[in-house]
Amino acid sequence: MPDEKLTQVLRIHAGRLVGDGVPVPDVQAAERELERWDDWFGFWADRGAAYERLADEALAAGHDLTAGRLLWSGSLSYHYAQFLWWHDPVRKTAGQEEKVRLYRRAAPLLSPPARPFEVAVEGLRVPGFLRVPDGPGPHPCVILLGGLESTKEESLLFEQLCLERGVATCAFDGPGQGEFLEQSPLRPDFERFTSAVVDVLEDHPAVRGDRIGVLGRSLGGYYAVRSAASDPRLRACGVWGAFFDLSFFDDLSPSAAAGFAYVSGHPDPGAARDVLQRTIDLSDVAGALRCPTYVLHGGSDDLIPVAQVDRLREALSPDVDVTWDIPPEGNHCCHDLHHLVRPRMADWLADVLR
Amino acid sequence: MPDEKLTQVLRIHAGRLVGDGVPVPDVQAAERELERWDDWFGFWADRGAAYERLADEALAAGHDLTAGRLLWSGSLSYHYAQFLWWHDPVRKTAGQEEKVRLYRRAAPLLSPPARPFEVAVEGLRVPGFLRVPDGPGPHPCVILLGGLESTKEESLLFEQLCLERGVATCAFDGPGQGEFLEQSPLRPDFERFTSAVVDVLEDHPAVRGDRIGVLGRSLGGYYAVRSAASDPRLRACGVWGAFFDLSFFDDLSPSAAAGFAYVSGHPDPGAARDVLQRTIDLSDVAGALRCPTYVLHGGSDDLIPVAQVDRLREALSPDVDVTWDIPPEGNHCCHDLHHLVRPRMADWLADVLR
Repeated sequence: MPDEKLTQVLRIHAGRLVGDGVPVPDVQAAERELERWDDWFGFWADRGAAYERLADEALAAGHDLTAGRLLWSGSLSYHYAQFLWWHDPVRKTAGQEEKVRLYRRAAPLLSPPARPFEVAVEGLRVPGFLRVPDGPGPHPCVILLGGLESTKEESLLFEQLCLERGVATCAFDGPGQGEFLEQSPLRPDFERFTSAVVDVLEDHPAVRGDRIGVLGRSLGGYYAVRSAASDPRLRACGVWGAFFDLSFFDDLSPSAAAGFAYVSGHPDPGAARDVLQRTIDLSDVAGALRCPTYVLHGGSDDLIPVAQVDRLREALSPDVDVTWDIPPEGNHCCHDLHHLVRPRMADWLADVLR
Repeated sequence: MPDEKLTQVLRIHAGRLVGDGVPVPDVQAAERELERWDDWFGFWADRGAAYERLADEALAAGHDLTAGRLLWSGSLSYHYAQFLWWHDPVRKTAGQEEKVRLYRRAAPLLSPPARPFEVAVEGLRVPGFLRVPDGPGPHPCVILLGGLESTKEESLLFEQLCLERGVATCAFDGPGQGEFLEQSPLRPDFERFTSAVVDVLEDHPAVRGDRIGVLGRSLGGYYAVRSAASDPRLRACGVWGAFFDLSFFDDLSPSAAAGFAYVSGHPDPGAARDVLQRTIDLSDVAGALRCPTYVLHGGSDDLIPVAQVDRLREALSPDVDVTWDIPPEGNHCCHDLHHLVRPRMADWLADVLR
């Protein structure tokens, strides 16, 4: 019998792992073989290392496409090894670094490739990847934002949905996220970083500067609304999980509370709560949002309460064209409905941006 | 608690459903909600109908790519509704027809599209689909063969692996398979039908006539060796599950035995056994096989005994270039390792045919 923490993680997150592309046999092996949460990190790190070995064999045989996918699988394995490993910063950082390293190796082998870039903001260097659809450009582009522990390496399958609909994708790590955490903790003014990325995309020959949108997942739903409300160059706003403020901080699981403490650089969840409840709040900007907006939220989300949807609804201007997609049975970010909701979000983005 | 038959089907086949592209949330819903094998057909047929409704909504909104995938999901749902429904020919036939109908609707919307064709053989009309990679042709091509209950509508994900490696795909229903069963029961001389399809492909402007291969799964492993050994125009032979003869008929599950009776048109499994053990046998042709060959077989296959690999090994000429891929932990056709074995089979096909 798996212990309580492990049972909870699998119950809440298995659909996300599958939707993001972790091979189902690996998720099933975790369900079947693991008994202790303590063994989670090692289980996935071992898989990450095994995928890299297979990728090197594929490269040696000239099978670049296969090698790229295996490196991506390895990167995802390390990502999920460390994603909730807040209590052990040494291993968490090591897993993060392996994820980043394997994704960088995968990037040129993906189809289409992920092209790395960096943007300077306030003397910091923001890392990201741009992927461009086949065919003559310039193309519309969507900026994809992660949340509390999701990063630019996690969105490949959603990127494919956008790319095959003719929309380029740009994923970057902002404050508090992934490899950028070592430069900056979480900041409520994430929009400064999104706008710096828009500056780059606007001038990019493969991108249509007047057809740029943004989509953020979970805590990224907060970042997306802030970004789109603050920068009129963003013509579409995807909210993959409504996140208006942190009024529900005291209802967070201990793990999520520890996560907020970790990424915000505060010593403990109590200190993080005081700061974040004061600063993470869309009240000052939501009314300024003007572009077409899509809000997806699971009616049965037990991480972000559905009341956050109501907060957002009340704060948006009645003039904004908003599509509300709230499946009653959907869990957090509707990950358990990934096969249905992700293509329709991508269709919406393509309709608005093309 | 699910009943014994349902437990067995899910244990043996869940990996195949996932590997073939049935959405994981649907497989999990079956595992969670179903209690009686009797409810299996209805469960999947309901999903098939629901996918068609969603596809019609997507079409009305101009979302053709999404619609094509939803129609394909609907087709797969009906496929798996009926795949073991040997005891109830009326419903089995109805499920088969819905599968065919939905795949035909999906075909022009797939990327790349699946182009239907028919070949006349002995006054019968063999139905198939050809899919051609993007980019300038002509292209190498692999003919994909199903087995006892797999059909031309089931191979889309494997087709994608071939297509993105520059190899066109051709899937058809031969004797005893899918919609062609109404014209012909299973025939041991399946190679006549493969060769008729090669005749068509040879003259097709998108296909390189000197770069055609064949790959067959499960019972299709028998058809593939027969076809390649009999027709020197086939330049690569993929055996996705070694199947040399039916010496193990008495060890088949009652369901598989009923399946052989059903597709061979014999009144009962005993009669089918007598005929099939006499006629399904590679002894007369295996020694003539000359082209490069890949044999994948699960070392833990509990449907086709691994002894069938040894039979094939002994019968092949020592001059043939054979790659043996027998993962010890692999189940039937290594479906539980689909994420690893399918890309490497596709790489091998591309290496040999390109």
